[in-house]
Amino acid sequence: MKYVKYGKCVRCGRTYPAVPDLTTCECGGILDIVYDYDAIRRDLTKEALAARPERSMWRYRELLPIEDGTEPPPLRVGWSPLYEEGRLAEELGLGRLWVKDDGQNPTASLKDRASAMAVAKAREAGAKVIACSSTGNAASSLAGNAAAAGLETYIFVPSRAPKGKVAQLLTFGATVISVEGSYEETFELSKAAIDRWGWYNRNAAINPYLSEGKKTVALEIMEQLSWQVPDYIAISVGDCCTIAGLWKGLKDLYAIGFIDKLPRLSSAQAEGCCPLNRSIETGEPWHPMEENTLADSIAVGVPRNADKALMAIRESNGLTVSVSDAEILAAQQLLGRTCGVFGEPAGVTGTAGVKKLCRQGLIGKSDTVVSVVTGNGLKDVANAVKACGEPITIPSDMGRLLDAFAQRGIRPE
Amino acid sequence: MKYVKYGKCVRCGRTYPAVPDLTTCECGGILDIVYDYDAIRRDLTKEALAARPERSMWRYRELLPIEDGTEPPPLRVGWSPLYEEGRLAEELGLGRLWVKDDGQNPTASLKDRASAMAVAKAREAGAKVIACSSTGNAASSLAGNAAAAGLETYIFVPSRAPKGKVAQLLTFGATVISVEGSYEETFELSKAAIDRWGWYNRNAAINPYLSEGKKTVALEIMEQLSWQVPDYIAISVGDCCTIAGLWKGLKDLYAIGFIDKLPRLSSAQAEGCCPLNRSIETGEPWHPMEENTLADSIAVGVPRNADKALMAIRESNGLTVSVSDAEILAAQQLLGRTCGVFGEPAGVTGTAGVKKLCRQGLIGKSDTVVSVVTGNGLKDVANAVKACGEPITIPSDMGRLLDAFAQRGIRPE
Repeated sequence: MKYVKYGKCVRCGRTYPAVPDLTTCECGGILDIVYDYDAIRRDLTKEALAARPERSMWRYRELLPIEDGTEPPPLRVGWSPLYEEGRLAEELGLGRLWVKDDGQNPTASLKDRASAMAVAKAREAGAKVIACSSTGNAASSLAGNAAAAGLETYIFVPSRAPKGKVAQLLTFGATVISVEGSYEETFELSKAAIDRWGWYNRNAAINPYLSEGKKTVALEIMEQLSWQVPDYIAISVGDCCTIAGLWKGLKDLYAIGFIDKLPRLSSAQAEGCCPLNRSIETGEPWHPMEENTLADSIAVGVPRNADKALMAIRESNGLTVSVSDAEILAAQQLLGRTCGVFGEPAGVTGTAGVKKLCRQGLIGKSDTVVSVVTGNGLKDVANAVKACGEPITIPSDMGRLLDAFAQRGIRPE
Repeated sequence: MKYVKYGKCVRCGRTYPAVPDLTTCECGGILDIVYDYDAIRRDLTKEALAARPERSMWRYRELLPIEDGTEPPPLRVGWSPLYEEGRLAEELGLGRLWVKDDGQNPTASLKDRASAMAVAKAREAGAKVIACSSTGNAASSLAGNAAAAGLETYIFVPSRAPKGKVAQLLTFGATVISVEGSYEETFELSKAAIDRWGWYNRNAAINPYLSEGKKTVALEIMEQLSWQVPDYIAISVGDCCTIAGLWKGLKDLYAIGFIDKLPRLSSAQAEGCCPLNRSIETGEPWHPMEENTLADSIAVGVPRNADKALMAIRESNGLTVSVSDAEILAAQQLLGRTCGVFGEPAGVTGTAGVKKLCRQGLIGKSDTVVSVVTGNGLKDVANAVKACGEPITIPSDMGRLLDAFAQRGIRPE
């Protein structure tokens, strides 16, 4: 890979050649992919980029750890819309606000960016099978992206996984192993199987390439903003790989001179599960927490990529904000009503955080903010039902309709 | 509108000025929007189109019935991916096959194209409120697109509408009226309310502009194929507006010389509800049918746009194919497993039809086919669960995993 130097441990600094099946450091630390920014600076200009017809995460080829000859996997991942939301900015009391709707991806979450990268690297490794353990968006995005590329998947889920999510995996043709036990036991069986059969490992905290896929969300945001850096980028945080990827993308752009400063990150977690935010706020190392939140995709009591995420938030002089489940559901309604964007609970947690920071006066009229919605609300309709109340229920009768409107103070014009 | 001549009744031929709130003909017939193709031919070239950065349905501005100054509504609708599916073509015994995944739209169905058009025209009409009656994709796409544009919506649903769909509407801030009665009674109350308050009417069989939105799916397919016309385009058919729109788009392109022939349409309906296919097959006028299919979005016993659809299929020398619910669910699995595309039952009915036509020997190795997937499978997870069987359920134990694989003949490599 012309622009990749090596993988480097974020803990001990040891470096490793960037082979396709790279995993973690011997010391247990997570690796970071290091680029030759001077070479990229020389070869990639904003003008060249603007002229590329490709509208997907693969338009940023020089900044991605794939070989020249590697064909991107088939599904169209990335280049999700960035909407300026003037009315919502007004309502919250912000200078300007944009929403990046990453629910607009093939399997409806930001995780498609990582899974598409996993499929690309698995092909380079000559693998025919990819495996992971997950109940959520990582699993469905892997199953979908691998199916499109003709690769087999083995996916390990704890038996408590909702039937709907399992159905999505089975529809994509994955071999799904439902493990009677905890998530930890599920992970252990998947690890043993991966070791035994040598499957390609799609686990964002083990495989260092996956963050590189996720970082494309940052590259797109900045290009869509014509390289004008906002004051803040807000995102929900669970196992920490996404915020780490976001930060990596921003630093890449700074390193090659495409942006002249870095935004501050806003790390949003659920109050019932916020080990990372606690660590930042107390200055202590992070401690495992219970997983008490309905935002299942960020209910991660033991974040597997905490090192990179803590570094990202600190380096960016970031904010932390933890929100209740009620605040998360309120943000889901707010985004739906004012933006026409339907996000899953974990997907809208970043926006719930923005709203709270506005109320607390920590951000306001002089600030510009991008809020990333990381997954589609159709993934979890049950929680939306809880949040949104009841329709007006009447027989087909105009008199009854008039009464119902009057009772509710609805005055149609 | 520079390129629009008038609306013309498909039944009696009477013409009407193309005002923004145009509805049906006095004779009850549906109107078709007629363009000045000579002018478009003069002003629009393939090269000019290729150079446009806009990647949405609005890139085809000359072929759309909106005023020059009309701002497209905010959500990014259209330019959904077209995937060439070599492995599926092989499996089915087709020459070439492409899948157009229109589940990749803001509210996850092709209906966003019509709703975005409704919002654009409502703005031109100076309306602040749009209304419709529907339980499905038309309702959610209207609610989402209108919310993003800051317009109010009143949506009438029969009280049998699933809670999840109602939740999506409420999340988008729609005023939802749940009518205790049949769909017909729901429609009547909505009509009375629209008449009373003068709301803008989003009903694809009444408002002639909505087909013009839907036709953009055909414009995109042809541009994505570099104007090489396939032998067939396959699509599911319910209330008939979508296939009518598809055909309109193709005829537009033929009229302006962008394509040199027209493909044949393949009209796919559910066996339990196929009034249109029956009419074509028997040569009789269509008769209402029961709505016996799990593909709810095409369970339309009384299609409201049958005139246009019958004309489209006949003009194209099209095929009809009716498929069982089992064949629909099998097509859902097939698309998932081989393409990584997860469609709702009605969304994959076109592909189920393609498979059946291949088996019947009506299409085959010498044919090229585009199959349109009209909606996302996440809209109806319950039916996917029915279709996809059970995962392997075991404790976290390698011995048990080996046994389970052996029993099922799974040989991991």
